[in-house]
Amino acid sequence: MSDLQDIRTALRRFTAERDWQQFHSPKNLAMALAGETGELVSLFQWLGEEESRNLPAARLAEAADEIADVQMYLVALADQLGIDIAQAVAGKMVKNAAKYPVDRFRGSARKYDDPLED
Amino acid sequence: MSDLQDIRTALRRFTAERDWQQFHSPKNLAMALAGETGELVSLFQWLGEEESRNLPAARLAEAADEIADVQMYLVALADQLGIDIAQAVAGKMVKNAAKYPVDRFRGSARKYDDPLED
Amino acid sequence: MSDLQDIRTALRRFTAERDWQQFHSPKNLAMALAGETGELVSLFQWLGEEESRNLPAARLAEAADEIADVQMYLVALADQLGIDIAQAVAGKMVKNAAKYPVDRFRGSARKYDDPLED
Amino acid sequence: MSDLQDIRTALRRFTAERDWQQFHSPKNLAMALAGETGELVSLFQWLGEEESRNLPAARLAEAADEIADVQMYLVALADQLGIDIAQAVAGKMVKNAAKYPVDRFRGSARKYDDPLED
Repeated sequence: MSDLQDIRTALRRFTAERDWQQFHSPKNLAMALAGETGELVSLFQWLGEEESRNLPAARLAEAADEIADVQMYLVALADQLGIDIAQAVAGKMVKNAAKYPVDRFRGSARKYDDPLED
Repeated sequence: MSDLQDIRTALRRFTAERDWQQFHSPKNLAMALAGETGELVSLFQWLGEEESRNLPAARLAEAADEIADVQMYLVALADQLGIDIAQAVAGKMVKNAAKYPVDRFRGSARKYDDPLED
Repeated sequence: MSDLQDIRTALRRFTAERDWQQFHSPKNLAMALAGETGELVSLFQWLGEEESRNLPAARLAEAADEIADVQMYLVALADQLGIDIAQAVAGKMVKNAAKYPVDRFRGSARKYDDPLED
Repeated sequence: MSDLQDIRTALRRFTAERDWQQFHSPKNLAMALAGETGELVSLFQWLGEEESRNLPAARLAEAADEIADVQMYLVALADQLGIDIAQAVAGKMVKNAAKYPVDRFRGSARKYDDPLED
């Protein structure tokens, strides 16, 4: 059983019931994802790093809702593109492991690199 | 077995092997997520909606990698916050169903609303 | 007289009056900028390209407010970094002109490139 | 003379010379803005707040280029919408001053609010 596939199934039904497929081009869904990510990042903008690790309950609930929004649009976008997210992640992890070999990156600050990404 | 939990397990190992937990405050991960979302959205910026539905293979592969990056940072962020993504999505879907009742939103363009979101 | 400098002067006063400098690290301002950009992009997410060229008055007023927010955080960020925006733009335009020579890029669709950017 | 208008004039020429107006719908420009903002925010994602105030020269030059990119797309977007940025900022500042009265917001942390924005 896959929870990403469960989300996809639920979203397909939600969208079809409202006849919203017409709006859900990959271009539009990518924009919606950017909008939701903006809301998520704004929750943390005035917090110190330590504060961001200790959110009060109300703020944590907001973060959960925003994370859910990002996840839903990401699944909807991948679905429109015919991309299997779990597979895409597995493939990217192989690339990342090759790109950031443990012996060269371990414990190193490299603050001016972006460790996890291209 | 849950694929979101699988991703979380793999990311925890990847991060611990490199001793990168020190960088992974929720604040920083939210920023990284915003950066990756920016890369994803930029793939679609000059395409028409129809073109975005028919990406050439190379562009589709790029999109898969960027979707993977967003997914990984989203899982890492939720993990740091102690949020269960599948649960958060389930909760948000209940709210969305109440907010966008089928009979009032079905087939309606409502182009100046944001159908799926707050 | 420079309007970017006018905005900077007004923002410095606004911030100082409220004693908000403490929150305005470049890191935090970059996040705030991302949040505002997310709000701006979300205004266009369900619109076709032609619709986006013909916004109704209320939506246009929202866009003006969001553009103002992005502009203000961009000025505040540049100010904290000691960057002169007009100068930075002039420098980037020289690079862009070299990168996208007219004879090679004119009229070409190149939809899978990002014409204006790195 | 206005430096925002100077940028607009230079961008109009740059775009016209390459016949890129066809790509520059407000929708597309908003996406491009989001992509550039993502690049800008990613420069700061692994830095502490204090580090973000003391960028090494190479990183500062990158930030200047990214700030220039954001500024250019913001001007291009406002131009397509017929919005005067300086005017929009002036209008938003009046709203912000009313929304955040000095006596109620001065010196207050209010970390879980977004001081400068809606």
